[in-house]
Amino acid sequence: MEMMACCGGGLCCQCCCNEGDTRTPEELTILGETREDEDEILPRKDYESLDYDRCINEPFLEVLEGLDNKKARKYEAIKWILVFAIGVSTGLTGLFVDFFVRLFTQLKFSLVGQSVEECSENGCLALSLLELLALNVMFIFISSVLVLVEPVAAGSGIPEIKSYLNGVKIPGIVRLRTFICKVTGVLFAVAGGLFVGKEGPMIHSGAILGAGLPQFQSITFKKIRFHFPYFRSDRDKRDFVSAGAAAGVAAAFGAPIGGTLFSLEEGSSFWNQALTWKVLFCSMSATFTLNFFRSGINFNKWGSFQLPGLLNFGEFKCVDGDKMCHLWTAVDLAFFVLMGVAGGLLGALFNCINKRLAKYRMRNVHPKARFIRVLESLLVCMVTTLVIFVASVTLGECRDLVSTNNNTSTQGSVNEEVNSTIRRFFCYNNTYNDMATLFFNPQEVAIHQLFHQNATFSPVTLLLFFVLYFFLSCWTYGVSVPSGLFVPSLLCGASLGRLVANVLKINFHMQVYAGTFALIGAAAFLGGVVRMTISLTVILIESTNEITYGLPIMITLMVAKWTGDFFNKGIYDIHIHLKGVPLLEWETEVEMDKLTASDIMEPNLTYVYPHTRIQSLVASKSSVLTRAGEQRRRCQSMKSYPSSELRNVCDEQTAVEPAEEGQDILQQMLERRHVPYPNLYPDQSPSEEWTMEERFRPLTFHGLILRSQLVNLLIRGVCYAENQSSASQPRLSHSEMTEDYPRFPDIHDLDLALLNPRMIVDVTPYMNPCPYTVSPNTHVSQVFNLFRTMGLRHLPVVNAVGEIVGIITRHNLTYEFLVAKLRQHYITI
Amino acid sequence: MEMMACCGGGLCCQCCCNEGDTRTPEELTILGETREDEDEILPRKDYESLDYDRCINEPFLEVLEGLDNKKARKYEAIKWILVFAIGVSTGLTGLFVDFFVRLFTQLKFSLVGQSVEECSENGCLALSLLELLALNVMFIFISSVLVLVEPVAAGSGIPEIKSYLNGVKIPGIVRLRTFICKVTGVLFAVAGGLFVGKEGPMIHSGAILGAGLPQFQSITFKKIRFHFPYFRSDRDKRDFVSAGAAAGVAAAFGAPIGGTLFSLEEGSSFWNQALTWKVLFCSMSATFTLNFFRSGINFNKWGSFQLPGLLNFGEFKCVDGDKMCHLWTAVDLAFFVLMGVAGGLLGALFNCINKRLAKYRMRNVHPKARFIRVLESLLVCMVTTLVIFVASVTLGECRDLVSTNNNTSTQGSVNEEVNSTIRRFFCYNNTYNDMATLFFNPQEVAIHQLFHQNATFSPVTLLLFFVLYFFLSCWTYGVSVPSGLFVPSLLCGASLGRLVANVLKINFHMQVYAGTFALIGAAAFLGGVVRMTISLTVILIESTNEITYGLPIMITLMVAKWTGDFFNKGIYDIHIHLKGVPLLEWETEVEMDKLTASDIMEPNLTYVYPHTRIQSLVASKSSVLTRAGEQRRRCQSMKSYPSSELRNVCDEQTAVEPAEEGQDILQQMLERRHVPYPNLYPDQSPSEEWTMEERFRPLTFHGLILRSQLVNLLIRGVCYAENQSSASQPRLSHSEMTEDYPRFPDIHDLDLALLNPRMIVDVTPYMNPCPYTVSPNTHVSQVFNLFRTMGLRHLPVVNAVGEIVGIITRHNLTYEFLVAKLRQHYITI
Repeated sequence: MEMMACCGGGLCCQCCCNEGDTRTPEELTILGETREDEDEILPRKDYESLDYDRCINEPFLEVLEGLDNKKARKYEAIKWILVFAIGVSTGLTGLFVDFFVRLFTQLKFSLVGQSVEECSENGCLALSLLELLALNVMFIFISSVLVLVEPVAAGSGIPEIKSYLNGVKIPGIVRLRTFICKVTGVLFAVAGGLFVGKEGPMIHSGAILGAGLPQFQSITFKKIRFHFPYFRSDRDKRDFVSAGAAAGVAAAFGAPIGGTLFSLEEGSSFWNQALTWKVLFCSMSATFTLNFFRSGINFNKWGSFQLPGLLNFGEFKCVDGDKMCHLWTAVDLAFFVLMGVAGGLLGALFNCINKRLAKYRMRNVHPKARFIRVLESLLVCMVTTLVIFVASVTLGECRDLVSTNNNTSTQGSVNEEVNSTIRRFFCYNNTYNDMATLFFNPQEVAIHQLFHQNATFSPVTLLLFFVLYFFLSCWTYGVSVPSGLFVPSLLCGASLGRLVANVLKINFHMQVYAGTFALIGAAAFLGGVVRMTISLTVILIESTNEITYGLPIMITLMVAKWTGDFFNKGIYDIHIHLKGVPLLEWETEVEMDKLTASDIMEPNLTYVYPHTRIQSLVASKSSVLTRAGEQRRRCQSMKSYPSSELRNVCDEQTAVEPAEEGQDILQQMLERRHVPYPNLYPDQSPSEEWTMEERFRPLTFHGLILRSQLVNLLIRGVCYAENQSSASQPRLSHSEMTEDYPRFPDIHDLDLALLNPRMIVDVTPYMNPCPYTVSPNTHVSQVFNLFRTMGLRHLPVVNAVGEIVGIITRHNLTYEFLVAKLRQHYITI
Repeated sequence: MEMMACCGGGLCCQCCCNEGDTRTPEELTILGETREDEDEILPRKDYESLDYDRCINEPFLEVLEGLDNKKARKYEAIKWILVFAIGVSTGLTGLFVDFFVRLFTQLKFSLVGQSVEECSENGCLALSLLELLALNVMFIFISSVLVLVEPVAAGSGIPEIKSYLNGVKIPGIVRLRTFICKVTGVLFAVAGGLFVGKEGPMIHSGAILGAGLPQFQSITFKKIRFHFPYFRSDRDKRDFVSAGAAAGVAAAFGAPIGGTLFSLEEGSSFWNQALTWKVLFCSMSATFTLNFFRSGINFNKWGSFQLPGLLNFGEFKCVDGDKMCHLWTAVDLAFFVLMGVAGGLLGALFNCINKRLAKYRMRNVHPKARFIRVLESLLVCMVTTLVIFVASVTLGECRDLVSTNNNTSTQGSVNEEVNSTIRRFFCYNNTYNDMATLFFNPQEVAIHQLFHQNATFSPVTLLLFFVLYFFLSCWTYGVSVPSGLFVPSLLCGASLGRLVANVLKINFHMQVYAGTFALIGAAAFLGGVVRMTISLTVILIESTNEITYGLPIMITLMVAKWTGDFFNKGIYDIHIHLKGVPLLEWETEVEMDKLTASDIMEPNLTYVYPHTRIQSLVASKSSVLTRAGEQRRRCQSMKSYPSSELRNVCDEQTAVEPAEEGQDILQQMLERRHVPYPNLYPDQSPSEEWTMEERFRPLTFHGLILRSQLVNLLIRGVCYAENQSSASQPRLSHSEMTEDYPRFPDIHDLDLALLNPRMIVDVTPYMNPCPYTVSPNTHVSQVFNLFRTMGLRHLPVVNAVGEIVGIITRHNLTYEFLVAKLRQHYITI
């Protein structure tokens, strides 16, 4: 009778998808590094995927049944409110960062600047330097310690958010602790005078707010836990993270449309109007919250909106009277293309150096010796401070303040504002020190100087500035502080662009608008480093608030990207690659279509009977088969048995077979979380009435159940005794199934002693009954498109007669995996 | 032996998906109208879908095999060049339209304006009116006759392009003749003084250029036919149409980003980075081509870029000195929300009236009596002219030209330009006639007046203007001329917004910036009428070139859309609905998830054997089975036959069965083009070696072949004699298969006498072997997402054992169909 119970539900078998490895990610990375070739960092298999597909199981259907249009509208309204809240809080975060950076920087520069002015007469410059050093080292130390507390808070955060939006879970990336460390850390990093921006961390912060706010609970602070049973799924979370990241961009650059496009470009695999609309609204909320408070605080103009983003480029404008002034002409486009090429080349160089540095760090700093990273930060800080100081004091030229070239336009109030931020170090009589003006100012001010200062900078100064900045910022990106890359890249590029304009003006006597060249230079270098396309174009257009720059910016970015792609990837992609994240590209290459689903799938599967004895789940006796076909063949070979014997055999098999893999499912659970169990059973129970023909029907695929769901069922005691019907099994509601999201209980949380091994679990109500499937002959491009576009986590491969033959996950679709398979394919031929 | 040949390939059976109907679309619409209830226009079944999925059959694989990375790069380069060409030619089209509209309008207004000035002294105003009437009627007559030549050129074209991008083929919509008629027609319609815009037609023109240019051939002009064997698929064409439509928007509004978003919002079901990048490039090319030539021609400033789009809103700007001036403040937002509500309500009213008008036209004008439509156009033209003239001459007020309210800002050069376009009809001493200024000017000038004129308009004038304009433009949209809706809606809304500003200023003494209110009013009304969301926001922001308007425009559009949606759909959706286009919405409603694939699929299928005798395809003897299950059951019931007899039975079945449907496949081909044949066969040939078990395997689904492909195979004589092997069948290459795209040969083109009915066609190399499939239990939302996102045309429903049980096409997923099925579902419960 008990045999009956197991086989009654169908045949069950289990195995696992990827080889278990108990080492921690970090150990793996290090091993991988020392073991592997320079460029052979393979995507790691321990990253999990986000699941954008809905699991329409019975608890979910119950929720749907109860959902009338009124409730649906309420649900929708909650979403809008949350999106607004995310936008506002991202804006406020930006305000917070901006306010304190401003405060600390002003304090620092006024203190040291004053000291320099005084000391240039008294000759006590060393004292000024020490003052500056002390302040900067203090700031950077705080920032670095914060990163020690939460290591994922280091860097810009864009690689992590890009990975997340691509569908990869990176542990700790959207946690409250990360948020606090990132926000406070970036504030001190920028205030400490490092060549870092606050834009990348703003995007990361926005994304964390997006992930966290709608959950109304925190993993870091357990006490923060309200009853709010909505949005407990990867699908919803990813939507909110998209909105948050967009809000971050919007707050950083005052570019709500650019932010929306950023989220779409990096994350959304498909265009969802309702979502995009919310994302745009969220971005707008962020920009205008920030704008409202900044305009109020800085200009005391409450209610007006005049300071859109943390970084904005000021107004590029010809003076009305000057008929000869153009921001750019068709002729300039040719130079912009050349600058794009240069930007691409320099960006590739930057990325190459930075990649080597990052690898060096990974190889030589043990993850447990993180304090060395703190020391490195402090070293970078000291070198940077020294360079800034020495360059400002000794390398600058004194330039006339009033424009020497009457043909360039003057810009009224913009110019006044720009002129108020010059530095005069040792320069008198209406001149200013050009090097000090660039170095001894906040970076945003330096960008404004390069974009809008009509007085010239000396070519030597610009070149020196570029070289120093290039290498220092390259070293800085990757040290253990939260650090954005946008502003340093823009500044680097702008100095180069300004240099080009200088040369054209002075050596070739061309009438060019120097600000435009600085802008295009900035775009070219930034484009060469990050290689973003559409979103960056729009972000830059929005930051300049000048639609006519659209074409030149776009062409420059395009050329820079193409040139750079010739040598290496964008900096974010490089860092994603170094982390071993299994990122999915946009499309597969044409050649990959020589492979089909059966070539790339994982054929070793774990099967579960719909009605499974707990014993077979927990004890060391679970049937592990290499593939459905074998199972079928075995069953076929048993066709001469009478039906009652057949059942025995099936059960025997369940008990005997596992020697093949030698592991029980519980061990597997301990080792690999959330590996799916493709759920298999024949659609009818075997019975005496079965005809021969029916008895020989192959095992068919009927659904997917996740490891986490199985553990959840066991923990909550969802099972029935063998002499009862499965209807007596307690039912879990959707909110009970998702209550513990995103950290589902571990198998460790399960007290095995409490489980009765003879009880049976009916998983059918909880499995995903109709996931998307593909046939084994489907070509890789089709598989890839389906997988990426629908945001799947598991894609079962089912043959023409409904048998499951393999499963495809993200790891089977990474570029590296496909290339390896393609190589095999050629060898086989 | 010959029996062997047929059954050797498997079982074949045919049927069809939808009921045949030989009436023309127009007849159907009319019948539908008279038969059905007011709101019961059901989507018509005679529209075909575009197929965005790739058909990876053997000829395609051959192409792939030959495609190395060098060729792939060349292919990519061709795409970029074509995209650039599309952008440039769209820009030039815009230039052409703009140039002639300007020419004709200036000619007209200067002629008549002069006459009015003279006649106001001499009292010969009737003569001036007659002059105006004659000119307008002439223009509109030309425009209307052009629409007579090509009826789909009527209207804005946005509903058609929206449908196309959604995946519905509308005959003739992207043809060269349509392009010529549309472009020339809209030129005369606008010049003729009708209340129509040229923006919608620009988008349509861009889309036609996108569809046509990459084909290097024309259906209208057969002689245009170069050898260019690329991009002969719906997939490529749709990409180019996206780019072209975006370029149209970009040229019309100077909004390249808005254009890209328009294409994405309306068309792209999934976000494809490479495509989006090309679309943006295409838009940029269009804007800057137009900008380059317009700046050159109008300002004689070749090489500068100062006139971005056909329609731009001028610069909204506070004068630097005026510290109190804000474009908008937080307080104004409340008014903007109210204006959004008003815009939504008025838009809904507009749509409601227009819908009734459109229905009246459909009911009462026989499609063959199109000349009545010409007469209607002329009538509208005469009434409009009369209203313009009488209102200008009699209803205007004389207002002081210099701003009476000193608090409003003055705008320097913008204002000078605006002041140069006022009309003084009967007003002297530095005053102007406000009604004449609005009515007796091109619409773009009137918009500029409302946005930037500092002098006030009388509230009565504004109200009168709004009412007259509202009803006349409502009547006009739908008459038989190419006519956009953007400009009239903007003008309507702007007058209302200006009225609100007037009231606030004068009655409540608030300090508001009138231009902003006019802009928000325009946005509100336009949003209420068209209900577009993201793209419209971005288009308006780009047109104003002022990022700070982002939030107010977005909030207004959102409120207007929500308010309007309470009553009816957007005007474009209404017209799509009236045409019976089976448009797919963005998402299914929550309730629809109570249905599964098996509830909505079409269970009556047509099957084809992989190896089919031509006889059974062409003659009246084709096996038509209602479903695979039945076929299987029949085969099962034959299990006692010896294997040779089994074959006989199969063939007999093929010959005898069709009585059920009573139609041969040829007749079906004549009536319904491109209905798919799900292709079914067992994976092995039945043979003596078959075991019992194998013989009883159900028929499994193996691929899809289109009717057009079958006809192509027959026409090109792809078949083999029964005593030969299928390898002797001639093979077609991919370019031969797609040569006739988009008009595949009709069955009429096939000389039946030439076909040997005993020959056998092997369709396996040409079918799509692995289309995406779903299981019968899949919920509607999943089916819908897969179908819409992947841009499918047919989605086979395959059960757990690999049998095909039905097929889902676009028609099974329209809102109306789902609602009907849901109603059935409730009744069944």
